[in-house]
Amino acid sequence: MSRVWNFSAGPAALPEEVLRQAAEEMLDWHGAGMGVMEMSHRGKEFISIAEQAEADLRELLAVPADYRVLFMQGGAIAENAIIPLNLLGERDTADYVLTGSWSVKSAKEAARYGKVNLAASAEASGWTSVPVLESWQLSADPAYLFVCTNETIGGVEYAADPDLARIGRAEVPVVADMSSHILSRVIDVSRYGLIFGGAQKNIGPAGLTIVIVREDLLGRASPHCPTAFDYKTVAEAGSMYNTPPTYAIYIAGLVFQWLKRQGGVAAMEARNIAKARLLYDYLDGSDFYENRIDPVCRSRMNVPFFLKNEALNDAFLTGAREAGLLQLKGHKSVGGMRASIYNAMPIEGVAALVDYLKTFAARHG
Amino acid sequence: MSRVWNFSAGPAALPEEVLRQAAEEMLDWHGAGMGVMEMSHRGKEFISIAEQAEADLRELLAVPADYRVLFMQGGAIAENAIIPLNLLGERDTADYVLTGSWSVKSAKEAARYGKVNLAASAEASGWTSVPVLESWQLSADPAYLFVCTNETIGGVEYAADPDLARIGRAEVPVVADMSSHILSRVIDVSRYGLIFGGAQKNIGPAGLTIVIVREDLLGRASPHCPTAFDYKTVAEAGSMYNTPPTYAIYIAGLVFQWLKRQGGVAAMEARNIAKARLLYDYLDGSDFYENRIDPVCRSRMNVPFFLKNEALNDAFLTGAREAGLLQLKGHKSVGGMRASIYNAMPIEGVAALVDYLKTFAARHG
Repeated sequence: MSRVWNFSAGPAALPEEVLRQAAEEMLDWHGAGMGVMEMSHRGKEFISIAEQAEADLRELLAVPADYRVLFMQGGAIAENAIIPLNLLGERDTADYVLTGSWSVKSAKEAARYGKVNLAASAEASGWTSVPVLESWQLSADPAYLFVCTNETIGGVEYAADPDLARIGRAEVPVVADMSSHILSRVIDVSRYGLIFGGAQKNIGPAGLTIVIVREDLLGRASPHCPTAFDYKTVAEAGSMYNTPPTYAIYIAGLVFQWLKRQGGVAAMEARNIAKARLLYDYLDGSDFYENRIDPVCRSRMNVPFFLKNEALNDAFLTGAREAGLLQLKGHKSVGGMRASIYNAMPIEGVAALVDYLKTFAARHG
Repeated sequence: MSRVWNFSAGPAALPEEVLRQAAEEMLDWHGAGMGVMEMSHRGKEFISIAEQAEADLRELLAVPADYRVLFMQGGAIAENAIIPLNLLGERDTADYVLTGSWSVKSAKEAARYGKVNLAASAEASGWTSVPVLESWQLSADPAYLFVCTNETIGGVEYAADPDLARIGRAEVPVVADMSSHILSRVIDVSRYGLIFGGAQKNIGPAGLTIVIVREDLLGRASPHCPTAFDYKTVAEAGSMYNTPPTYAIYIAGLVFQWLKRQGGVAAMEARNIAKARLLYDYLDGSDFYENRIDPVCRSRMNVPFFLKNEALNDAFLTGAREAGLLQLKGHKSVGGMRASIYNAMPIEGVAALVDYLKTFAARHG
């Protein structure tokens, strides 16, 4: 089979250029006589790969100097515990904004380590909207405020960085799960105390977790925090307290270089806006399909949609597969369909999806 | 450069056949139209890869049916915390056998979660021997007995599976860190309660941790254990509570298939014996080099050695590199040299090393 259009929510499509380079370098990286997977993480070759990856990520996101970039393991789900284990410190409460499946899961895990104050919740909307910043009810002295800025399953996204100064709480560090939209748009890192994400959606292979953390938040870990997940220990060891997921860091680094060749995050954001508009505009104009998310908070990365006649779901998916459009089935908790259109999905892929949507609607409408 | 002989202690050399197959399948796995890195972990393609990997590992190690195989993240260092968090249960003590750097680190981390009884220690020997089973002093009712069956840095290895029945303590589960010799020799899994290892030495890429655990040890996790590292949760979710390190599992699976083509673990053990003998016999017969480890517990995987005239160390390493023999420098805590000769190192690589040792000695002796 030739390459398909892969709409998986994650692990997800990677740029073909990146995969070709990885394949070419598999047995011999830059004349080293060995592949990246075979290199000691303490050797000069791999250290140069990791340093370049960090430098490129810093450049792409304009990470300020007082933030540390950590390459960790365990994914966003492990971070749900690692974050309270590191950041609660002497405080007993953390504030959580609930916007869908992932933030609910994050809050539930945090409640195992401290008191969770629900600052806001979109549950009453059926997770089709997000609570606006002005509605967030922070507790008196939270260790941090947690928000998932893009919900992969529900398909909602905060359109702007949360600026707690606007509600008079600038002192509270914002912790953001950006797993499924990191690097898809320009962000102001200084608005956050900590940004984290599993790599397997918009960065690279599963098994790598990116953490960007403000230095003053290091050193507060609980005695129950495994040393390998103590941010201060990880930072001081340059992400090499334990052997890091070296190959995943290498692939992430190739993706960062690809992003720079694409013009960086601002250029990627413009493409992502165009891709999302193409798909949402078609869905909105159709009587056959629908997207149920409040337009002000629709995700540019994860687009859930429904056939109005759900009896046609199986035929839709079968036809999509025949047309080379894969992994469009919606998450089981939502149903319907979902198209994840991360950075690595070109507009041609979205156009192919819209063509198929039209053809299928015309045949069955 | 052509492929070198890579003696890295880990991440380490992988079989060239495995790397070639991975490169060929990078953009399109078995006609799926996508690479393994891009596949949803919940799709039928990846599930078939993970199931085959587990089945092959079970076959290679003859894992009994009442043991679960878990694919985790965080490496052996994270397991140093994850193990007491999972296994202490209502007991307050775990017994540790100290044989070198890694078991010392394991015991230190465990002491953060409970009481550590030092059942035995080889420290007085300068870590050049291992305490025999009959000398182990177990506590009255330990949650488990921890042993590192092969110390990567020191180069010592227990020659046989520890059988606690021989000291009348069959009820105590043995927890073994086998990171650097798993799959290098036939073992009796039933002698152990839990076996674990980071993949990056004898299995595959860094970022994957293999855990083989007897079912009755599941379900004892502390309330402080992150859910993503609760063995019971991981087992019940088929290692997919969080997104597993999919590509690392795929590479490990290719290594397992390669091992089967080599004749399995027994055949590999015979080769490893021959490889180790070739190197140790030369070292022992030489006046120029020495290995300081008690012959009864010399590691077949990690061979530390010294030039008797250490002023020649730099010249030795420079000449080795020129001869295509890489990563021979010893661990900084031990000094000298170290040759790691895992499964993926063929006897031709060891022979090339011995040739170089002879040539260098002849020139400088």
